[in-house]
Amino acid sequence: MPLFEQYPLSLYNSMAREKQLFEPLAPPFVGLYTCGPTVYSEPHLGHARGLITWDLVFRYLRHLGYRVRYVRNITDVGHLEDEVTDAGEDKITKKARLERLEPMEVVQQYTVAYRKAAADLNALSPSIEPTASGHVPEQIQAIKNILSNGYAYERDGSVYFNLARYAASHPYGKLSGKVLDDLIAGSRQTEGLNQKQSPHDFALWKKASPEHIMRWDSPWGQGFPGWHIECSAMSTKYLGETFDLHGGGMDLLFPHHEAEIAQNVGCCGNQGVRYWIHHNMLTIEGQKMARSLGNFISIEQVFSGNHPLLEQAYSPMTVRFFTLQSHYRSPVDFSNEGLQAAEKSYRRLMNAAAALDKLEYRAGAFDAELERQIQEACHTLYRELSDDFNTPRALAVLFELSSRIQDFRSGNKVLGGISADAFAQLQQNFKAVLFDVFGLLPETQAQTSKLDGVMDMLIRMRTEARASKDFAASDRIRDELLAIGIQLKDGKEGTTFSVEG
Amino acid sequence: MPLFEQYPLSLYNSMAREKQLFEPLAPPFVGLYTCGPTVYSEPHLGHARGLITWDLVFRYLRHLGYRVRYVRNITDVGHLEDEVTDAGEDKITKKARLERLEPMEVVQQYTVAYRKAAADLNALSPSIEPTASGHVPEQIQAIKNILSNGYAYERDGSVYFNLARYAASHPYGKLSGKVLDDLIAGSRQTEGLNQKQSPHDFALWKKASPEHIMRWDSPWGQGFPGWHIECSAMSTKYLGETFDLHGGGMDLLFPHHEAEIAQNVGCCGNQGVRYWIHHNMLTIEGQKMARSLGNFISIEQVFSGNHPLLEQAYSPMTVRFFTLQSHYRSPVDFSNEGLQAAEKSYRRLMNAAAALDKLEYRAGAFDAELERQIQEACHTLYRELSDDFNTPRALAVLFELSSRIQDFRSGNKVLGGISADAFAQLQQNFKAVLFDVFGLLPETQAQTSKLDGVMDMLIRMRTEARASKDFAASDRIRDELLAIGIQLKDGKEGTTFSVEG
Repeated sequence: MPLFEQYPLSLYNSMAREKQLFEPLAPPFVGLYTCGPTVYSEPHLGHARGLITWDLVFRYLRHLGYRVRYVRNITDVGHLEDEVTDAGEDKITKKARLERLEPMEVVQQYTVAYRKAAADLNALSPSIEPTASGHVPEQIQAIKNILSNGYAYERDGSVYFNLARYAASHPYGKLSGKVLDDLIAGSRQTEGLNQKQSPHDFALWKKASPEHIMRWDSPWGQGFPGWHIECSAMSTKYLGETFDLHGGGMDLLFPHHEAEIAQNVGCCGNQGVRYWIHHNMLTIEGQKMARSLGNFISIEQVFSGNHPLLEQAYSPMTVRFFTLQSHYRSPVDFSNEGLQAAEKSYRRLMNAAAALDKLEYRAGAFDAELERQIQEACHTLYRELSDDFNTPRALAVLFELSSRIQDFRSGNKVLGGISADAFAQLQQNFKAVLFDVFGLLPETQAQTSKLDGVMDMLIRMRTEARASKDFAASDRIRDELLAIGIQLKDGKEGTTFSVEG
Repeated sequence: MPLFEQYPLSLYNSMAREKQLFEPLAPPFVGLYTCGPTVYSEPHLGHARGLITWDLVFRYLRHLGYRVRYVRNITDVGHLEDEVTDAGEDKITKKARLERLEPMEVVQQYTVAYRKAAADLNALSPSIEPTASGHVPEQIQAIKNILSNGYAYERDGSVYFNLARYAASHPYGKLSGKVLDDLIAGSRQTEGLNQKQSPHDFALWKKASPEHIMRWDSPWGQGFPGWHIECSAMSTKYLGETFDLHGGGMDLLFPHHEAEIAQNVGCCGNQGVRYWIHHNMLTIEGQKMARSLGNFISIEQVFSGNHPLLEQAYSPMTVRFFTLQSHYRSPVDFSNEGLQAAEKSYRRLMNAAAALDKLEYRAGAFDAELERQIQEACHTLYRELSDDFNTPRALAVLFELSSRIQDFRSGNKVLGGISADAFAQLQQNFKAVLFDVFGLLPETQAQTSKLDGVMDMLIRMRTEARASKDFAASDRIRDELLAIGIQLKDGKEGTTFSVEG
């Protein structure tokens, strides 16, 4: 029985505004689309939250046994402009190609930075990573369909979506809770009314001004696609006209996702997405993050500690753990205090995982209550995750199990008190959820090879010193190690060490 | 004065068949295009050679002070086919989108693998990484131009380049040394003659058969671009109709690069590329690498050692060093013996770089001959690299300088024997070439943090043991460390250690 049958997943569908049982269109296949980055600036903490959230969703769906096709787009059709002087376009066209600004060079820089941040955060690569610039023919085709279905109109080389026409027969605003008439009433009359019939009609295709660099031929002349159409075109191409899951940040509910729905209906006759899921936003010490507030922190700055608001550097795994401590639908407030606490908690889990590996099972006097508690916790782990990806509650269970593991390790509880089956399940579930689903990594992995050898040697020297009652020497080894952040722990099965900082 | 004026670069132009002074079209800008991977299988050792070669070229051009736009394409228009049964296309179209094979999923898997290999090998990301599938409109436009210039013809939904027409007025075969009439005479009459006028005419656009998955609309019906046209379209788009450097493996000389030239002329009236550079091939213990010979080694296998032909794992830096030991125009033979020797040589350089960092300059009795030798070697480093990227000879100079550094370190030579300027130049040039140009990295960087602390402690303990004449204890520390691959070295300025393996 696949895990998705054993622990059926329910999730909060933003469209229905309630938790629903997740029933994919064609199990075990699952199609997941999320709105990826606009690659015209450094990836920042908001991106980190998105990366970690959707990676958790992707990992958990896979772990449950689904075969997931995860599509995350890259918005690379940007709005860079070249200099136009009084002489008009001439200066641009006469400049040597290499001296001219090339938007794809900017795109590459920030795409590479985004992928690096994702890899650092141990976020898996999506199954497909399509770019807007690489899907212009598909976008033009979608716009042609919308036009021929009567939901758009052309004005002077641009094409706009006709919201009034659409809203007359479809529930525009259902996802975001916006009402078109209110939006129009609230608009200033002077605003946005150039060629558009109504101020909230959005562009499907924009005519390129002379200074606009990225441009393609189209039935409406040279131009470039509007922002919203790429997600409709690419999700349909790779996942089908109807697909299972569409994710994104809550800031994308309106207008972006509302526009996607209108486009899907205008193009293909149905809204396409079966479950909409949205993650909540990130604040910095209680404030919205914005360059103008001076609290804009890039992912690289978090890892290096190089920002006035940061008291120290925080490792990728600390950031990952910190993010998953909150439910994806709750806001996350980024603070030094919170991160430092997360750093400690993360280490506790990693120490428990290392201890779990070293425990050797031997049968002993059976403790029925302990057996029941451990088995129950092992199930609860999955039940919590299958309850709308409840990571904070699953983490609480991992900490409960960590305490059990440390009990066994220190001898407070006899490992043999539970059955070999229960112990195997504990090992299996604890590590599967910690590493495969939460995607946490032991950070010191790379450093441990030689260090392990040297530490074995020092522990042996200390043991010998104690055996020959040379306590000055043995204490000195312990204290000096402590001073450089390595703690020795004496247990029944010898001395082990743990690394801090 | 920029370095490119101080050390003018000459390079072997495959078209001219001679070394030429490199004179970019619009210095300090340089446009470089290389043929990137076809992402339908694992990156292998041949890819590693290409990655390292072009990374060295890119790094050296930048280091010389050029502003390089490096474009490396990704060939992702593949030839995957879906199953067609007796019922024809029906079965494909009726299958749910998610159950169908999606070529872009395969593309993503191997693109990610290629990028990971590149990052492991410390190859910089190119400035732009365009995909063939993302540039279909540009390829269609190029084909339209070639057609309207009379160098191509359409047959039943496909478009072919007319080689006879082209060769009548242009030197087809000049780059590769092939003669069209010989090629045609050598063809079997039955071969390749379906719709083509001549067997060596190549496809610019191919009609998609029903089972072909990747397909786009075109003026000639649904189909997909031929292999060669993408490089013409993308190099022109991002570097201009004429650009400086085009690189690739020698196996691409014919037919790929010959076809690119014909297309460029057919489309824009000139061949576009000012300098063609080609790197030589890689053999495995003297044999061509091929899956059928069982000697096909993926990059991942080299790093893990998981292949019957590999005696051990080889680190990315060993592979990088090994590759750069040969000149790019010489063949490289991949053998365990060669790699193991490279591993040792690479460590020697890294140890010298570490020693160089620790040397402290104090003026002493001047040694004019030594001063001259060191200054000369510092210049020769660049002269060799500017002589057609002669990495083996530049490495020989680095080894010569390494010996000087070890002389200073061991006290065989007095550091103060040279001027402070010469020492500064030694430090500058040695490290710049080793790290920035050769792109080699100290591999143990990540492991050193805690290990350094513990080693300081052990060295202190040993020094104290020797001071109190407890030679048993001090020797034991030295011997046990040696057993786990850490060597202590006693010098004038105290004891240092080096890590092996």
